[in-house]
Amino acid sequence: MREVDVAILGAGSAGLFALSQVKRETDNYVLINGGELGTTCARVGCMPSKVLIQVAEDFHRKSIFDREGIDGAEELSVDVPASLEHVQDMRDVFVDKTLGVTDEMDVQHLLDGYAKFIANDVIEVNGEQIKAKSIIIATGSTPVVPAAWQVFAENIITTDEFFEMEDLPASMAVIGLGSIGLEIGQSLHRLGVKVAALDQLKNIAKLDDSKVNELAINTISREFPLWLGEAAVLEQVGDGIQVTAGENTMVVDKVLASLGRKPNLANLNLAATDIKLDANGIPVFDPQTMQLEGLPIFIAGDVNLDRALLHEAGHEGRVAGYNAARCGANIAVEKFKRKVALGITFCDPNIAAVGAQLSELDEENIAIGEIKFAPVGRALIIGKNRGLLRLYVQKSDGLLLGASMCCVKGENLAHLIAWSIQNGMTVFDMLKMPFYHPVIEEALQAALYSVLSQLDVKQDLVELERA
Amino acid sequence: MREVDVAILGAGSAGLFALSQVKRETDNYVLINGGELGTTCARVGCMPSKVLIQVAEDFHRKSIFDREGIDGAEELSVDVPASLEHVQDMRDVFVDKTLGVTDEMDVQHLLDGYAKFIANDVIEVNGEQIKAKSIIIATGSTPVVPAAWQVFAENIITTDEFFEMEDLPASMAVIGLGSIGLEIGQSLHRLGVKVAALDQLKNIAKLDDSKVNELAINTISREFPLWLGEAAVLEQVGDGIQVTAGENTMVVDKVLASLGRKPNLANLNLAATDIKLDANGIPVFDPQTMQLEGLPIFIAGDVNLDRALLHEAGHEGRVAGYNAARCGANIAVEKFKRKVALGITFCDPNIAAVGAQLSELDEENIAIGEIKFAPVGRALIIGKNRGLLRLYVQKSDGLLLGASMCCVKGENLAHLIAWSIQNGMTVFDMLKMPFYHPVIEEALQAALYSVLSQLDVKQDLVELERA
Repeated sequence: MREVDVAILGAGSAGLFALSQVKRETDNYVLINGGELGTTCARVGCMPSKVLIQVAEDFHRKSIFDREGIDGAEELSVDVPASLEHVQDMRDVFVDKTLGVTDEMDVQHLLDGYAKFIANDVIEVNGEQIKAKSIIIATGSTPVVPAAWQVFAENIITTDEFFEMEDLPASMAVIGLGSIGLEIGQSLHRLGVKVAALDQLKNIAKLDDSKVNELAINTISREFPLWLGEAAVLEQVGDGIQVTAGENTMVVDKVLASLGRKPNLANLNLAATDIKLDANGIPVFDPQTMQLEGLPIFIAGDVNLDRALLHEAGHEGRVAGYNAARCGANIAVEKFKRKVALGITFCDPNIAAVGAQLSELDEENIAIGEIKFAPVGRALIIGKNRGLLRLYVQKSDGLLLGASMCCVKGENLAHLIAWSIQNGMTVFDMLKMPFYHPVIEEALQAALYSVLSQLDVKQDLVELERA
Repeated sequence: MREVDVAILGAGSAGLFALSQVKRETDNYVLINGGELGTTCARVGCMPSKVLIQVAEDFHRKSIFDREGIDGAEELSVDVPASLEHVQDMRDVFVDKTLGVTDEMDVQHLLDGYAKFIANDVIEVNGEQIKAKSIIIATGSTPVVPAAWQVFAENIITTDEFFEMEDLPASMAVIGLGSIGLEIGQSLHRLGVKVAALDQLKNIAKLDDSKVNELAINTISREFPLWLGEAAVLEQVGDGIQVTAGENTMVVDKVLASLGRKPNLANLNLAATDIKLDANGIPVFDPQTMQLEGLPIFIAGDVNLDRALLHEAGHEGRVAGYNAARCGANIAVEKFKRKVALGITFCDPNIAAVGAQLSELDEENIAIGEIKFAPVGRALIIGKNRGLLRLYVQKSDGLLLGASMCCVKGENLAHLIAWSIQNGMTVFDMLKMPFYHPVIEEALQAALYSVLSQLDVKQDLVELERA
């Protein structure tokens, strides 16, 4: 039986980041990938969705032209097939980049096939068994489509197929308003598709803060309706699908199922191992080592359903790869700190959550800084001054714990805030930093000021730093 | 003779920030303002220029429409008087905001007139003498127009007049390519004005790093020509002005003189005081206290020609106000740290300089991290992937000292970098922070990686943090 130090199951983002660490320690590894190479991020996720958003946003910007003295907005139109071709062209560029590593690998190191477990340390691929000192599960995830919807399969699209479309239907229901549904739904509307956007939850983009959620819903639903809080019921009507949710109903050509993603675990034959599963059927793992309890097995990326984000897949992959290589060499695994939580939905305005969220905090111990964007100079100038930023601050000492926002340039503010939290900064520390003028970062400054009077600790002249 | 604790000369940004501190300590103060109320920033500076830039940028975005499958770009046109009216409307909103404080002041506290010194502690306004325990000079600055150009006065515009124009001329020379000239010059070009943009220096936007300067010039001059390194010679030709610089020449309708600003000191009768002047005729002051050596006099804002930026005027005003109030009460003044230097030019792509610049550093002791934006995913998606970011890093320990950049979203990157420098972060610290995907902050991540191999100190697993 072939024996390797490390076997990595899956050549997506997490698997490739794991590989980068494994390679430093051993050349006796194997990367096993079933299906098409290229990452979820590049093929059907982060990248093509951002191109679509960019096109839709550029086209939508015409809505401000009249106010700015720019004539002719009504003459603009979208050639949808051309736009989609642009999205696909860019997508291909990004996919090609991710193929760089695997393109250079020989057949000893890269196997094309689906792996399944035979034992804790043995896998089988294409009928061949391989014994591995350690194994990394990085098999990714697949869009969820409810079994009951199989009968409508002709009309249902997931993000796996979406970016292959050569034209858009006249009407579309987007079911599930997490990040992906919200981003694509808004873009479809802006590109002229009649959109019904639904979620059975009452919050969008997983927003935890009800005030930010309310602002986000009010702002985004000025463009197109959001049907929230009712489950969708589908029914075939002629060539289309009638989508009903509570009192709302609409017949659409296609349905985008954006209900989330499920881990690719079903075909791994985990039953042949001692892997413990949690209530959701996900292997129990230590998020600081990425190791499965008591086994030489590691898990990284979307497959563990924890923080299914590219930059976290990168972190998890590196940790898993680092520890898997050492585990195989009988060196103790190490624990690594997780990064401050950072989630961004690239809708317009952006929605972002950073650090601890309200439901995780004891409201008695925190003060909330808040800024509505209406009077923020730069937001006014951009013409996007509907927005809200809320900061969660420890009352006793002013430590910033978390934030939630729906606002223009939220993606950039979220980074500044995330770095501040990870650096252990208080609101006093932050107010000593430079805020240029006129920039969107001044909204953060205003939110920081707004919290000062609510803190137990007072500092005079917080805006100055004694030398 | 009327006696006050503090007299503030000038109700611009620095004066108003000073006032906010003075008011906490005493009600016996006077704010003296000559000419129109409203700050340089709001009336003729930061704010209206950003509105103009926004309009020009929104109109210019049509250049990417064809690539994105958006038809009809050629039907767009700018109604320049309508655009300028929009700029002025927004400007009026911002000016009104700055008038809030002075609107509420009575005639005892707010005097309309130009002050001059009679002695170190006595000033005269409208013929009335006022004795002040301390005095803050916050009289601002005025655009420079060379004396030799007085004969062309009809054709010369400064930023003081620019935002009053109801239409734009067909052609214009922009002389002086610091931040203001570059921002307005590019916007004029985008709005259809034939622009000659000149500077006798070979660098634009005060760029200190020759590589960033080269990239900036190459990128911006793809849109409109920049005439650099030759002094401008003006000559009246009919109703226009012939502008010549070396081998380049053009007849234009108007000239925008954007040669910098001079401090408003000439009419203060400084000769009546013991104020020491430096070689440039600027009072010698301590930048940590804002006090003039040995005198109960303070100076803040553009008038001291040091860091003529709104956020620095705010800092200086607060320090001057804090110390002036104490000085008048015979309490020792305090020293305050300056913020990390941060300068942003809002041209497209943005130009920004943060912290120490190359000419201030010993090249032997630093390593330079560099990222060209060509392959940066998000920059590609936005269609603005001409850019360069350079980081100056202490070789011995990886401490980030400064940065220079010309790139999309430079204004946001510059904040993240400035805060990192002020926090004393090394490149290792920074790489442990979250970088979402796909965001422009990943360009910073790439620049940080690029410097690692050049450092004296090595760290394994720089992107992971051991728990």
